Amino acid sequence: MSRTVTFDNLVNFTKTVLLRCYGYSEKEADVTSRVLVEADARNIPSHGVSRLDFYRKNIQGGFAKPGAEPELVWQTPSSLVVDGHDGIGSYIAEWSVDKTIELAKQSGTAFCAVRNSNHYGIAGLWAEKIARQDMIGMAFTNTRTCGIPTYGRERVLGTNPIAVAIPEREDRIFLLDMATATVAHGKVEVYDRRKKPMPQGWAVDENGVGTTDATAFEKLFYANPQYGGHLFLGGEGEENGGHKGFGLALLVEILCSGLSLGMSSLNTFQPGKGSGITHFFGAMRLDLFGRSGDLKDHVGDILRDIRVGEKAAGQERIYIHGEKEAESRAKSLKEGVFIDDATTEFLDSLAKEAGIPIV
Amino acid sequence: MSRTVTFDNLVNFTKTVLLRCYGYSEKEADVTSRVLVEADARNIPSHGVSRLDFYRKNIQGGFAKPGAEPELVWQTPSSLVVDGHDGIGSYIAEWSVDKTIELAKQSGTAFCAVRNSNHYGIAGLWAEKIARQDMIGMAFTNTRTCGIPTYGRERVLGTNPIAVAIPEREDRIFLLDMATATVAHGKVEVYDRRKKPMPQGWAVDENGVGTTDATAFEKLFYANPQYGGHLFLGGEGEENGGHKGFGLALLVEILCSGLSLGMSSLNTFQPGKGSGITHFFGAMRLDLFGRSGDLKDHVGDILRDIRVGEKAAGQERIYIHGEKEAESRAKSLKEGVFIDDATTEFLDSLAKEAGIPIV
Repeated sequence: MSRTVTFDNLVNFTKTVLLRCYGYSEKEADVTSRVLVEADARNIPSHGVSRLDFYRKNIQGGFAKPGAEPELVWQTPSSLVVDGHDGIGSYIAEWSVDKTIELAKQSGTAFCAVRNSNHYGIAGLWAEKIARQDMIGMAFTNTRTCGIPTYGRERVLGTNPIAVAIPEREDRIFLLDMATATVAHGKVEVYDRRKKPMPQGWAVDENGVGTTDATAFEKLFYANPQYGGHLFLGGEGEENGGHKGFGLALLVEILCSGLSLGMSSLNTFQPGKGSGITHFFGAMRLDLFGRSGDLKDHVGDILRDIRVGEKAAGQERIYIHGEKEAESRAKSLKEGVFIDDATTEFLDSLAKEAGIPIV
Repeated sequence: MSRTVTFDNLVNFTKTVLLRCYGYSEKEADVTSRVLVEADARNIPSHGVSRLDFYRKNIQGGFAKPGAEPELVWQTPSSLVVDGHDGIGSYIAEWSVDKTIELAKQSGTAFCAVRNSNHYGIAGLWAEKIARQDMIGMAFTNTRTCGIPTYGRERVLGTNPIAVAIPEREDRIFLLDMATATVAHGKVEVYDRRKKPMPQGWAVDENGVGTTDATAFEKLFYANPQYGGHLFLGGEGEENGGHKGFGLALLVEILCSGLSLGMSSLNTFQPGKGSGITHFFGAMRLDLFGRSGDLKDHVGDILRDIRVGEKAAGQERIYIHGEKEAESRAKSLKEGVFIDDATTEFLDSLAKEAGIPIV
């Protein structure tokens, strides 16, 4: 049975589970619980509390080590390089983002490359945290390898998301938070469960040839660690710009694993080595370009012109990026965070393990 | 008849035409001729000397004003805002990029927003110029309006390209230079001429509904200034990530017209107002993150791993972004720059007008 839980109760429950069953420190549990519940509240359940299962497997596999402290290994007046020492991703991310914001307050802009980290939740949350300081916020990360370059057949890149947040009028934030892969793997699973062909442009088979067979692809994806995988935005080949999506994924890869001197997606999650996940954050003060209020008003005008544009036949709204998630969040804060059947069952099992009441 | 011309001869010819027939200053003609011929040499003829026709129309329409000098209107230790005063795009771009590089040399990073400019040639050239200084180079621009947001039917955005250049081993440069629109308009024209349906995901009709009728779309595109237009990377709707491509275009729009307090694509090319084109440049020193040589080697390793990955059935090579263009350029420098039939005829008419020998 699905369930609706208040935001605070879900955060507290998650935090207690991380403290009692995962060996997280107080600080690690605090930030990770907030980060996961933010995703559920924004209707991005793929990155919500259901990730607790993946997080445990990362600890069991030796990829994530609760208690490890991030270390600043390189610094200039406008840049930082952080070694996460295989610690908890959200904790490393918040630690790094806070330092990036402080540096940008002094220097105008600051960039931070992070190596040896772990999954840090939704990228958009970190970009947004920076944007709340009247800055343009950027967050990128590489991930476990799953994606295929244009004209290739081997998995050599992650989903490699891009997140950029820009403040506009009335405390609203333009928040682009997108995997450079065409779709998240969860979408393939839905087609597999329904035994329906998935759209062209999502994936290639072990020969690097486009496939719409969700069931065969799903089987391949888990059985074969090397061949066949996700395509990037624009799909197969170059006709619809698949080489552009591949290029964006490669850009994210270079910013994250390149500038941190860390592991590329291809080399992540090697037994005995930590996951090796890398991130890149950026903060650029809005008042680098004029009075912050003027800029936010002008950005607001640009976005308003897009919003009020005439709609396609049968459509009622043009969404600016971040609006759907902000509206879901407001609803969740008022009415509670929705937890689906499978996740409810999973949380109840964690309650039992932690010896606490179900949430 | 097509023709092959040495790089230098084509630059000199173009420069003379700009001086004699276009009223460009020496400095404007110098940079514009180099920028246009660079595009032809890299096999991007859509942005090569054939653009001279568009450039003249911009002058005749009062959108571009030879002789206008760019002005620095805002400066901080890591940022610049430039007003191009409706001058020549390539000249304004080089002026701004040179200042951005100088500032980044001092401050580590520098960003520059430019308003009231004009078409500046291939975006990648400016990003690459920055990358030649051992920096990460970025160049963005908005353009004349032609693109439709997800679920819209009005043209409210330009092709809004993204260019990022990152130095790697052996003086090679990763150079991603991509319109955020799925394809350039020239590709639609090819399908129209051949009377063949174009692929899904390129364009929508006046009702905002996807169309593959290249001929009908071509007619609409010129007859109707407001409805129907290009889709962004990922195509129509959200199924293949069209909202992501739209988001990237919007990001470019905010960086360019937002941060420069300039005109958005929607408001460009209004009679009596200049074209209002806006740009955004960024420079980030590689040694912000470690020893520059170490970083270039590491980026080189990451790219090598992608290059050597196994190929899809029937494919022989995985191209890293910038390789095709760099190889075309090397070939053009050696064997001459190829000029197609229509462009040769056009250049010959310019020779006659300028009173100089054909090139």
